[in-house]
Amino acid sequence: MASQQAATETLAPLSKYSKRVILKTVLEGGTGLVGQTIVIGGWVKSSNEVRKEPLPPPAVAVAGDAPVAAKDVTCVEILQTRIPFFRSIMKVLGGNQNPGRGKLESIVQQLPPPPSVAVLQVSDGSCVPSLQVLVDSSIAPPIQVMATGTCILVEGILQQPTVRGKHAIELKVEKIMHVGTVVQDNYPLSKKRLPLDMLRDFPHFRPRTTTVASITRIRHSLTQATHTFFLNNGFLYVDMPIITTTDGEGFSDKFQVTTLLGKDIKKEAIAMDDTGGVSLETIKASINEKSKQVEELKRTESNREALVAALQDLRKTNELAAQLEARKKSKSGTSVKSQMVKVEFSEDFFSRRTFLTSSGRLHLESYARALGNVYSFGPRFRAQKLESKKQVAEMWMIEVEIAFSQLEDAMNCADDFLKFVSKWVLENCSEDLKFLSKRVDPTIVDRLQLLTSSSFQRISYAEAVEVLKQVKDKKFEAKLELGMPLTEEHESYLVDEIYQKPVIIHNYPKELRPFYVRLNDDGKTVAAFDVVFPKAGKLIRASQNEERFNVLTTRIKELDIPKEQYEWYLDLRRHGTVMHSGFSLSFDLLVVYATGLIDVREVIPFPRSHGKATN
Amino acid sequence: MASQQAATETLAPLSKYSKRVILKTVLEGGTGLVGQTIVIGGWVKSSNEVRKEPLPPPAVAVAGDAPVAAKDVTCVEILQTRIPFFRSIMKVLGGNQNPGRGKLESIVQQLPPPPSVAVLQVSDGSCVPSLQVLVDSSIAPPIQVMATGTCILVEGILQQPTVRGKHAIELKVEKIMHVGTVVQDNYPLSKKRLPLDMLRDFPHFRPRTTTVASITRIRHSLTQATHTFFLNNGFLYVDMPIITTTDGEGFSDKFQVTTLLGKDIKKEAIAMDDTGGVSLETIKASINEKSKQVEELKRTESNREALVAALQDLRKTNELAAQLEARKKSKSGTSVKSQMVKVEFSEDFFSRRTFLTSSGRLHLESYARALGNVYSFGPRFRAQKLESKKQVAEMWMIEVEIAFSQLEDAMNCADDFLKFVSKWVLENCSEDLKFLSKRVDPTIVDRLQLLTSSSFQRISYAEAVEVLKQVKDKKFEAKLELGMPLTEEHESYLVDEIYQKPVIIHNYPKELRPFYVRLNDDGKTVAAFDVVFPKAGKLIRASQNEERFNVLTTRIKELDIPKEQYEWYLDLRRHGTVMHSGFSLSFDLLVVYATGLIDVREVIPFPRSHGKATN
Repeated sequence: MASQQAATETLAPLSKYSKRVILKTVLEGGTGLVGQTIVIGGWVKSSNEVRKEPLPPPAVAVAGDAPVAAKDVTCVEILQTRIPFFRSIMKVLGGNQNPGRGKLESIVQQLPPPPSVAVLQVSDGSCVPSLQVLVDSSIAPPIQVMATGTCILVEGILQQPTVRGKHAIELKVEKIMHVGTVVQDNYPLSKKRLPLDMLRDFPHFRPRTTTVASITRIRHSLTQATHTFFLNNGFLYVDMPIITTTDGEGFSDKFQVTTLLGKDIKKEAIAMDDTGGVSLETIKASINEKSKQVEELKRTESNREALVAALQDLRKTNELAAQLEARKKSKSGTSVKSQMVKVEFSEDFFSRRTFLTSSGRLHLESYARALGNVYSFGPRFRAQKLESKKQVAEMWMIEVEIAFSQLEDAMNCADDFLKFVSKWVLENCSEDLKFLSKRVDPTIVDRLQLLTSSSFQRISYAEAVEVLKQVKDKKFEAKLELGMPLTEEHESYLVDEIYQKPVIIHNYPKELRPFYVRLNDDGKTVAAFDVVFPKAGKLIRASQNEERFNVLTTRIKELDIPKEQYEWYLDLRRHGTVMHSGFSLSFDLLVVYATGLIDVREVIPFPRSHGKATN
Repeated sequence: MASQQAATETLAPLSKYSKRVILKTVLEGGTGLVGQTIVIGGWVKSSNEVRKEPLPPPAVAVAGDAPVAAKDVTCVEILQTRIPFFRSIMKVLGGNQNPGRGKLESIVQQLPPPPSVAVLQVSDGSCVPSLQVLVDSSIAPPIQVMATGTCILVEGILQQPTVRGKHAIELKVEKIMHVGTVVQDNYPLSKKRLPLDMLRDFPHFRPRTTTVASITRIRHSLTQATHTFFLNNGFLYVDMPIITTTDGEGFSDKFQVTTLLGKDIKKEAIAMDDTGGVSLETIKASINEKSKQVEELKRTESNREALVAALQDLRKTNELAAQLEARKKSKSGTSVKSQMVKVEFSEDFFSRRTFLTSSGRLHLESYARALGNVYSFGPRFRAQKLESKKQVAEMWMIEVEIAFSQLEDAMNCADDFLKFVSKWVLENCSEDLKFLSKRVDPTIVDRLQLLTSSSFQRISYAEAVEVLKQVKDKKFEAKLELGMPLTEEHESYLVDEIYQKPVIIHNYPKELRPFYVRLNDDGKTVAAFDVVFPKAGKLIRASQNEERFNVLTTRIKELDIPKEQYEWYLDLRRHGTVMHSGFSLSFDLLVVYATGLIDVREVIPFPRSHGKATN
């Protein structure tokens, strides 16, 4: 008895800082909260209107049209259904005269609206279901509160449903404290179920859809899980610099950061070197060929080093051609417009060229080499216009670096991490997963559950090539031989068709990985692995980085990398070096995996597409 | 009895992923762990050498020099102390002959080192204290392991201290698994207590100092506390875009993001308008005057809107002057070099000008207006070359937006947040706080404790001006009248001298705040507040943002802001608007406050100073 009494006396908790009760607590509280007077706020997802009493005299035509209107109609639709309703009244009042259109409207305006109840489905973003909210027409005209997207803040009493609805409880409004109306003509969400990709034109309204709200809650939950996992395992969080001059992966795909362009660029005509008699035509032919080579390398995607070299080569040739052309024009006196510009970076904000970071792992090593286990979590950038659904210019990455560890340790850490966060999402986001299963992909819960229990398939790069070469029933776009990069197509065949679970591919040929990855004893492969996921693709890139000073300098020399830029990085090997490994995990692709979406742009707040910046 | 036995049997837990025992657990476990064989890894902070047995025959000169060497000497010092030691041996062996320098050295090299024990203080970054580690010379030559900065991974047995030390337990090494040596000549940390600002030239070694390690651990702890606070209070985490085209605070201090500069800039000579006979000299005089005005505005710092307007004006005038000059030169045929360049942003990566965000709050509103309570935590950018110790180009900010709330609610949230994180740090970082109290600022613990218990002083802007005008014993650099911005000097006088605790200053004149801050009923002030902290300065900028469509458009018109850029922001008022408030908190300044450092560059990983980019 006592405990029952206590339960019914439990008050719905107020949200601090906004003096309203969060709908999640109301909907979870259920009938236990009946009788309480509370304040709630939210946005109308859908609505309908219920007439309170039959109108005298009830014409047959009217009965079918207006009362207990179809569920989930918009305000416009309600008005439309009302026109014949008023027409019927006119018939009754004025006999069979057919009033002109203008006349009818003026009469409609003058008529007091019939008493009714607006039944609103209201969401405040705290959970998937909406609360049913009843607003009597004596409190507010239905037209004011019923449009989809309307914001309301109301006080009311919780009661058992009087109007048919999905939930165990509803709110009868007693006082309206705020209404934020909607201009219906141009509110994009008035239409039901706008496809997600169309919504990209309205990024500021995306969170108001149940799908994006669910994605946001899962994303939030994955963030919490990430910090919790690393806290539990003794990792320290360190944020890495975004503006940087060093980078582990070359500068080919970099965004430059500058304050020069706002001002007037001080320029100089580039000194025009003698090209030794090579004709412009010869150079242009060479450019053509080199461009093709670059395109091929871009398509295969993985061989970054070769791509960087090819791009540098192409750029130099392009410069040469442009110089020749400019000189030609200059000589013929046609124009100065296409002359070359040399930018004075010494006048830039940092007095030199600076870029947006594409990876924080090299910097993170400084911290691992003093504090042991560290991780970072922040935005990383790549100025690649690839036609991939798995890559946009700005993505959040989790980066991990573990001192006193080898490749196997990083594998175990990645494995544990993914198990932990999958379990976390299954436990904390069941409602959102249920909704997305219904709406987007029915397999997401199964996939997450599989992740929590089974270990990943581990194969070497050589084994992966062997397995793929055995494939007879499928023709891959790109040829594959030992030493060649695996394409997205190869990888997805491995995980989706052959193993049907996440696959760790390890020990790549050194040519396919950056200079800092640790050389294996065979002198040919390096200690690196990727984790490829079904649907989400390459989620993790990992490596044990080279701790041996001499081996590292040899690699830098082999690849003709400007050593002076990496002196600080070499310093870490000169003084107190240690074995260490780590990985970069694409957080956005993790959200893709957990939500069942296919395109990474759908899971990012303010989608940043390839060619178009966000607001 | 049973529990005692259980305690002694508790094994020191292995760190997953690096197969070693974290030193924190060893040092906290204390004598309970004696007798266990464990693996530990870390870096030598200091060392000394202890001779194992008295050498026959013990000359008086030797006894004072070598054994139980002074604590905390570097390896160089040990070698130096050894020269007389060997000289003594020579005396004994070879009588009184004084060997030449070269001869002595060759003999020293040939002599087997006398048996000794290297006593190392080793840290792995998990806590402030070091573990005392004993390496017998039979296991490794002392010179190999004793240099400050050497990395070791060793297996050994935990025992009660045989050599005088600070701690209850020490490790006797039985097997060396890895040594990462140090090139002593150029290892900057070989010198003890290098000042922090000198360390800025070696950002990659900073984490190896106890001070920076402590800062990092406190920073980590504040991050965890931040996510925990918002989780506990029902806030959703959303990361905001870094590359953006919109911004709430004008583009004057923005970094531009581009891929144009790597390529050849396509340019056009700007069309040269007729200036209607105004002479170049007149324009140059005007530029002079306008520059002075801008400098003045920059100095006072707070009046951002006026500064933006003045900068725009100055830029236009500068452009005009440059055009005139270019035309002059062009006419006289001297040079095309100083001609103006117009950059074609349509050819940039996003096909338009894009910037690094200086605040995510406007974007965050989209999420608050759908999901209620939201927060963001990420890097924000400002290309200001101010000589302030409280501002660098790249800083991490916590941004909060609360739907259905007013200014008072944001104040309460900020107050609770600061109380919560202060308490968290006091509870979780006591050792680091103790160390920093000793080394940096003895008042930090008191200040944090004050924060957890007392409420902030709340005064209006008008009251603040009134109070400061009453001050007689201090002459401020900048004049202060109602309507003028408070400078850093004014603010620090209020918190450090007058109130001696954090102060909330609210209700600023509308001219001193951006267009989107909500206009108060008086039509003159706006609903904004700042929180100013002792030492750390302005930690929080907060506001209730304008939810009324008409008021907002009027403000945009008044300030002549390009409305088309903010159509998406106005959309949020057109459709389902709601009262809401929020704040931006400078996370880096919070770390300044908690660590007692004065310069924000000291608390940032890879310090990003005004004029110099990091690695």
